[in-house]
Amino acid sequence: MASKKLKIDQTKKLILTSGRASVYLAKEVAENLGVELLPTKAYNFANGEIYVRFNESVRGASVFVFQTHCDPINDNIMEQLIMIDALKRASARNITVVIPCLGYSRQDKKSLGREPITSRLIFDMFTAAGASRIVSIDMHAAQAQGFFDGPVDHLTAQDVLSEKVNQLVKSDKVTIVSPDAGRIRVSEEWVTKFPNAKLAFVHKTRDVTQPNVSKVGKIVGDVEGRDCIVVDDLIDTAGTIAKSVEAVKKAGAKNIYVVGTHAVFSPPAVEKLSECAAEKVIVTNSLPITDEKKFSKLEVVSIAPLLARALKAIFAEKSVASLFGPES
Amino acid sequence: MASKKLKIDQTKKLILTSGRASVYLAKEVAENLGVELLPTKAYNFANGEIYVRFNESVRGASVFVFQTHCDPINDNIMEQLIMIDALKRASARNITVVIPCLGYSRQDKKSLGREPITSRLIFDMFTAAGASRIVSIDMHAAQAQGFFDGPVDHLTAQDVLSEKVNQLVKSDKVTIVSPDAGRIRVSEEWVTKFPNAKLAFVHKTRDVTQPNVSKVGKIVGDVEGRDCIVVDDLIDTAGTIAKSVEAVKKAGAKNIYVVGTHAVFSPPAVEKLSECAAEKVIVTNSLPITDEKKFSKLEVVSIAPLLARALKAIFAEKSVASLFGPES
Amino acid sequence: MASKKLKIDQTKKLILTSGRASVYLAKEVAENLGVELLPTKAYNFANGEIYVRFNESVRGASVFVFQTHCDPINDNIMEQLIMIDALKRASARNITVVIPCLGYSRQDKKSLGREPITSRLIFDMFTAAGASRIVSIDMHAAQAQGFFDGPVDHLTAQDVLSEKVNQLVKSDKVTIVSPDAGRIRVSEEWVTKFPNAKLAFVHKTRDVTQPNVSKVGKIVGDVEGRDCIVVDDLIDTAGTIAKSVEAVKKAGAKNIYVVGTHAVFSPPAVEKLSECAAEKVIVTNSLPITDEKKFSKLEVVSIAPLLARALKAIFAEKSVASLFGPES
Amino acid sequence: MASKKLKIDQTKKLILTSGRASVYLAKEVAENLGVELLPTKAYNFANGEIYVRFNESVRGASVFVFQTHCDPINDNIMEQLIMIDALKRASARNITVVIPCLGYSRQDKKSLGREPITSRLIFDMFTAAGASRIVSIDMHAAQAQGFFDGPVDHLTAQDVLSEKVNQLVKSDKVTIVSPDAGRIRVSEEWVTKFPNAKLAFVHKTRDVTQPNVSKVGKIVGDVEGRDCIVVDDLIDTAGTIAKSVEAVKKAGAKNIYVVGTHAVFSPPAVEKLSECAAEKVIVTNSLPITDEKKFSKLEVVSIAPLLARALKAIFAEKSVASLFGPES
Amino acid sequence: MASKKLKIDQTKKLILTSGRASVYLAKEVAENLGVELLPTKAYNFANGEIYVRFNESVRGASVFVFQTHCDPINDNIMEQLIMIDALKRASARNITVVIPCLGYSRQDKKSLGREPITSRLIFDMFTAAGASRIVSIDMHAAQAQGFFDGPVDHLTAQDVLSEKVNQLVKSDKVTIVSPDAGRIRVSEEWVTKFPNAKLAFVHKTRDVTQPNVSKVGKIVGDVEGRDCIVVDDLIDTAGTIAKSVEAVKKAGAKNIYVVGTHAVFSPPAVEKLSECAAEKVIVTNSLPITDEKKFSKLEVVSIAPLLARALKAIFAEKSVASLFGPES
Amino acid sequence: MASKKLKIDQTKKLILTSGRASVYLAKEVAENLGVELLPTKAYNFANGEIYVRFNESVRGASVFVFQTHCDPINDNIMEQLIMIDALKRASARNITVVIPCLGYSRQDKKSLGREPITSRLIFDMFTAAGASRIVSIDMHAAQAQGFFDGPVDHLTAQDVLSEKVNQLVKSDKVTIVSPDAGRIRVSEEWVTKFPNAKLAFVHKTRDVTQPNVSKVGKIVGDVEGRDCIVVDDLIDTAGTIAKSVEAVKKAGAKNIYVVGTHAVFSPPAVEKLSECAAEKVIVTNSLPITDEKKFSKLEVVSIAPLLARALKAIFAEKSVASLFGPES
Repeated sequence: MASKKLKIDQTKKLILTSGRASVYLAKEVAENLGVELLPTKAYNFANGEIYVRFNESVRGASVFVFQTHCDPINDNIMEQLIMIDALKRASARNITVVIPCLGYSRQDKKSLGREPITSRLIFDMFTAAGASRIVSIDMHAAQAQGFFDGPVDHLTAQDVLSEKVNQLVKSDKVTIVSPDAGRIRVSEEWVTKFPNAKLAFVHKTRDVTQPNVSKVGKIVGDVEGRDCIVVDDLIDTAGTIAKSVEAVKKAGAKNIYVVGTHAVFSPPAVEKLSECAAEKVIVTNSLPITDEKKFSKLEVVSIAPLLARALKAIFAEKSVASLFGPES
Repeated sequence: MASKKLKIDQTKKLILTSGRASVYLAKEVAENLGVELLPTKAYNFANGEIYVRFNESVRGASVFVFQTHCDPINDNIMEQLIMIDALKRASARNITVVIPCLGYSRQDKKSLGREPITSRLIFDMFTAAGASRIVSIDMHAAQAQGFFDGPVDHLTAQDVLSEKVNQLVKSDKVTIVSPDAGRIRVSEEWVTKFPNAKLAFVHKTRDVTQPNVSKVGKIVGDVEGRDCIVVDDLIDTAGTIAKSVEAVKKAGAKNIYVVGTHAVFSPPAVEKLSECAAEKVIVTNSLPITDEKKFSKLEVVSIAPLLARALKAIFAEKSVASLFGPES
Repeated sequence: MASKKLKIDQTKKLILTSGRASVYLAKEVAENLGVELLPTKAYNFANGEIYVRFNESVRGASVFVFQTHCDPINDNIMEQLIMIDALKRASARNITVVIPCLGYSRQDKKSLGREPITSRLIFDMFTAAGASRIVSIDMHAAQAQGFFDGPVDHLTAQDVLSEKVNQLVKSDKVTIVSPDAGRIRVSEEWVTKFPNAKLAFVHKTRDVTQPNVSKVGKIVGDVEGRDCIVVDDLIDTAGTIAKSVEAVKKAGAKNIYVVGTHAVFSPPAVEKLSECAAEKVIVTNSLPITDEKKFSKLEVVSIAPLLARALKAIFAEKSVASLFGPES
Repeated sequence: MASKKLKIDQTKKLILTSGRASVYLAKEVAENLGVELLPTKAYNFANGEIYVRFNESVRGASVFVFQTHCDPINDNIMEQLIMIDALKRASARNITVVIPCLGYSRQDKKSLGREPITSRLIFDMFTAAGASRIVSIDMHAAQAQGFFDGPVDHLTAQDVLSEKVNQLVKSDKVTIVSPDAGRIRVSEEWVTKFPNAKLAFVHKTRDVTQPNVSKVGKIVGDVEGRDCIVVDDLIDTAGTIAKSVEAVKKAGAKNIYVVGTHAVFSPPAVEKLSECAAEKVIVTNSLPITDEKKFSKLEVVSIAPLLARALKAIFAEKSVASLFGPES
Repeated sequence: MASKKLKIDQTKKLILTSGRASVYLAKEVAENLGVELLPTKAYNFANGEIYVRFNESVRGASVFVFQTHCDPINDNIMEQLIMIDALKRASARNITVVIPCLGYSRQDKKSLGREPITSRLIFDMFTAAGASRIVSIDMHAAQAQGFFDGPVDHLTAQDVLSEKVNQLVKSDKVTIVSPDAGRIRVSEEWVTKFPNAKLAFVHKTRDVTQPNVSKVGKIVGDVEGRDCIVVDDLIDTAGTIAKSVEAVKKAGAKNIYVVGTHAVFSPPAVEKLSECAAEKVIVTNSLPITDEKKFSKLEVVSIAPLLARALKAIFAEKSVASLFGPES
Repeated sequence: MASKKLKIDQTKKLILTSGRASVYLAKEVAENLGVELLPTKAYNFANGEIYVRFNESVRGASVFVFQTHCDPINDNIMEQLIMIDALKRASARNITVVIPCLGYSRQDKKSLGREPITSRLIFDMFTAAGASRIVSIDMHAAQAQGFFDGPVDHLTAQDVLSEKVNQLVKSDKVTIVSPDAGRIRVSEEWVTKFPNAKLAFVHKTRDVTQPNVSKVGKIVGDVEGRDCIVVDDLIDTAGTIAKSVEAVKKAGAKNIYVVGTHAVFSPPAVEKLSECAAEKVIVTNSLPITDEKKFSKLEVVSIAPLLARALKAIFAEKSVASLFGPES
């Protein structure tokens, strides 16, 4: 006969916690889910070292750790890694890393000899710290999913963004413009959202050895007399975008709309976007939209409802693919 | 006083060995280097299992294991993995895996939920078997370098191919045509090899759930009255390429040249390429160019000299980047 | 006070899926369990690459992935690995790999220098792909359990086979014959199933450098005037088995029965077994028994009920050892 | 519509098992929890090899494996590793290693070149064998928590020990004495348990190249006319402790109490402690208190209730920190 | 007969490179060794992401990567990790990570539940990036050596520091004062460098939940009328040190000298140290001594000669232990 | 122009060191090689913990660490693991583990549910400690080579043993007898060393749940009037061997010789072997032949020359297979 054994019912607990850079977003997601963020203590020591501690037990829970990788980006990444380490050592059952805007995603290959592939390194660090799964939005290269040896739920903000753009654009003569030859495939997906839309791209050469500087060539494709939607995943200094808008305008475009998921907006992005010929600039809140980032043309759509639905599905172990699109 | 110790001079030995699918190429490389292939026994058991054994010692040697991933592709990958396992267990010092044409390189991301990322899986298998380094040519996505946690020497055949094309094209009005929106960045590199060249691409939608079938849309860019070079990394059934050639022709192109590094040429590729409007089809021997693959328009350039120079530099621990281009 | 948290009841889901080589068996197991196979899309690209996608969510489920390693064996192994990768990335809770007949199980040690140990390599690949546990039947060497760093449920078909043989053999003078000196320990287990049975073996030398060829020596043990049961784990070309039957017959055996768990039956196995002096050849359906494998003397017993009971116990977390014998 | 699927309720099972060295303690913990130890077979082969087998299924259970690392310490460590291996291969859900007194904890750094860090090695072995989590008590260095890449529940016996000492000490003039400069931080924690207590330590030099031998210097701090509590984590040969007691006595102390969590008591510890000037020696049963270890001054407090509460909290996934002190 | 093989002599190359935070020190070490730093390009993108590229080949070389972990500490750690990744992918033979002052070394254990062990995390990241070996100086806890699964050459600056202090202190009545009960063992080593020196420490309670704040108790030990050397490994805000100096002064000390290996000097360290009763503050240049850190009492000794000798020994594969003390 | 770089010639150093259990053998090997053992300090602390330190630098050397796994077997294994850890942390270039007689080799599979596979565990521990390669002799199962993920040089003592036996046996009518059905394949290899030899085995059932006890059945094969050589890999308590000799004698054998590589000789092996009908018992010194193990019939052949040749070949990176037989 078997020996007496203790048994308990297993009820899975969901816990949401956030690094200091994305509390604004994690709170909105938590409200969508009807929960509260885990009370967490986090501060920097005088020499810049980060200290984190969770105020309540996480033992046995499914924990989602938010942090968006905005500037100061290395601090924010490190804070998230330290949180994961603490969760692992505190017996969390599994740890899902939620990164609305993934850092270093553009350093995803060697363009020159003796370069790093920092995007892979970042994933390896999350693995080393104890991450079970990654959730991110519109990563620079879809291939980055393969940098992680586990589930990556790669969501897209294209639906929430294109819904907004659809409200703004009145014309039925639309061209989706890619500011960069490497991103036309994304533009192809946008075409499906606007009937009769055409495609165009700006042919430029980026000098890989010079950061944040770009040369813009000429438009390939048909933009004259058409409303143009210039689509990128990430808007950093907006140099490329601004030159693209200028080129499109010169080529005879009517109204121009700039769309990007991640509003990095390093200076002088706000200046450039304010002054360019675009009617509107539409972005999400995957990165914090601080006051310095705001200007009259800017429209921000929230990705919190999207994330909330994804987290709920993950936690309840339902299909994420069915909710959010093909790549989940 | 220290105890008596044995000491030996260390002279590093280079060994080249090849799976059965790329003996033709490994031999050519070996001749370029002035060495011979390691005598190797390889055969299939009646039930399809592969047996490999090396006839000479590999202890302490730097071994380069060739295999190109042509059809039967799973057999060829497995044979290379088995060779690596045998080398590891036979005390090879380090094992460089040479894959002229890397298999499963197109399955490098999830396009739909519940898909594999087989390209990452392949790299993980080489790691599990004991690979120290990878050498490959014109991988489908440069991001695949990041699928391996070690050195990847990613060579490009663009120089040897464009040299050949330059001999064939006489016009100074050239357009580089990308058959696919996702490959325009590669076309941008080709532009630098032809003065005054323009860019164009074919806008199509590929139905990811249907293998080897593709819909072709229309040309974006300027091809009328120009010589067109249609560039792809890999030509499989040639469906996309043939439709691109047709579209370019209809749009008024003069002479058309098709270029691809990897000549997979699954049926009916030969038929389609023979019949299409292209003047010439230029490929490398990264995959074996068997008799069934040959047709009158076909031009084949050998990558053996390229590989020989790379291997020599790797073995002698000199810069590969300086010899072969940026991504090494 | 603790913050509000979402909680859900955890009900574990069982999912069965199969590679294309073992749908016949997985379906029978599924019927035994009262479930259906997971709808799965799998096909080959023109160049031989395999594509797999699951049509329904597997998030949080306990998934059992069937594939038997029949010819084309490398394709079948690769397909199973790709399925595991897709399941891992789609957030399956754990992945149990069901391999009725394990490939490369005979290459489980180095018999000569510079050979691989492919059986270990295969297990490492399953680990790299994401396997949590292995279920297999009558592996060539029991030591292969130790090639995996996790649970291996090693089932045996001896009970279902010996039950069938017991119905056929009427004599009480039985000798269990091992065709190979290396397999007598298995024969010892068979002795316990037949009262008063004796043991014998065929003393031969296998030339390890020649595949599928074997020299047969003479019988050691007592077979004259006795019913003989020649037992092997795996029948490939049947060369060894046929010579053993011949030798046993010459030594004066009465009725002869050939038994093997895995019916590889590479040509000319069917011919040899049909023509040999055995009354009956009894095998399981661990490998598909295609029409070309069938012949009048052949008796096939199904292992589906055995697998169904094992899977049910594994899923319900009950003892497998108590159901199926010592090595589980 | 989704296919039919089997579902089961998940009730987590708790199993306690023990190596032969700590059955005495594991049984007491089991009684505290109202369960029974898993029936386990363990014995040594004639050549000293250890054999272990569990008599009942552990599939899917949360198993706690007890073993305290007393002499013969290498046998006991190996037995625990072998038990973990068997549990892993028998499909235990997770394996918590309970080590009341952790072996090799003093070899936690290199004090000389070419020394091992055996404490880290021990943790790596538990990882290699399959441990999910470690529970231990008063490890020599708190840093050892970082030697494990997972949760370590580091309990402390200070509460149960100080409660006992509080009953014995009647004076309100108490000094906590550290026998070793390296352990004063622990003494600082003891100060908080006795109002107005002072601190002192014995300044000595340990010759790291001579095992179990120590030189004692003089007292730093105020002990004259005060009751002294000499606190250490582990009492091995008691050489240091006895010399400390002697020095404290000479310096004018009144009553002296020796306290240690782990009673290793290698000879001649019992002799030295019996003869020294201490009134009482208070230890726990983290190591077995065999008859040879007993002497009149010895007081033993049980840590079984402490462990039982910790295991219950771990199993029920409640906070251990809230129950047992800061480091959990 | 063996096949023809290429052979080359192996001459090991030494390469030194440095992150931007420690170029000052790496250059001094390089000069000591008669080599030059590897030309390296490093800069930050507008959003704070770091880019690094080496300008010359590192293939096959033994590379030493310097970075000291000063503020901005997370940027500096990340830069070093990215450099390691680039070196690994560029085929460096082995990568020795040189960290004069190791970051996060104080977070080496859990003091409260749900804290991270960031020191272990940092070592795991270096492992994940590709580090072969670590060289560091006076790490906070010697146990941190065990956080790395490979060689750690743990050097000490005590010799260069005590040589300097010996020049300053004229008295033969010296007390070594530990500002913290946890660091007395280090003080014991200092005692051996001053004949007849005594030991003392300051008994204080640090509130672990409040960063950079400390309460100081009273002196335990004999300081009256003696020259006091207050020794710590790392001086951050100098709060503890300043209070210790004050307490020692009040207790009647004559001349007071403050010694620390790592001059973090977060504000208001310089103010506090300038104003305190110490004669001199002696530190090393393990961290950059910027102008803001300088004040009249400060004496800086260089550790470059120490590092140069260590690196030479490591490169030439000679004993480091024999050159620099016990823990190498 | 490249920067100045330090370069050194690389001369590989060979170092031999031994755990305390095999100094006798390591010394003999060292003498064969003309070197001396590395001066090593090893002792046990009072509580049984082992301390090891090497007295000279091992930086950059190829180190061979001897330890044979005799009783006290767990101490000897642990000592070897601790030595490996110290070598790894002291920067040895690579570490070859030399185990003349491998412990726990018989626990190489699960014979019952819930058993460990301790042989695999042992290999995993050597991996965790830092072993690069294994050298062993006549392991119980050749499959154990596959338990290690790296080179295993599996030597055989069959040549030195059979040479000795050939001197003793004068008859030309020889039968090689296997005491166990599982070891007949080894006997087949012995047949090749004696012209016209026959094979026989003893059919017995071992009760796996009872250690060191065995039931012996009857002889299968021809032994009457023949000289019999009873061959095993390992002689432990000699129960099986003695019963085999008895059975062979009863069946009419003439002279009987017992041969085994590993002389474990747990009591009452010496008594049983002395008293049994065998003429001679021939073993190697893979385990120490202490005085209690000696008796008049015993013949010991040394494996030191064999090991010396293997180590020399490994160190000089020449083929081991060509020197010592197929499985190297």
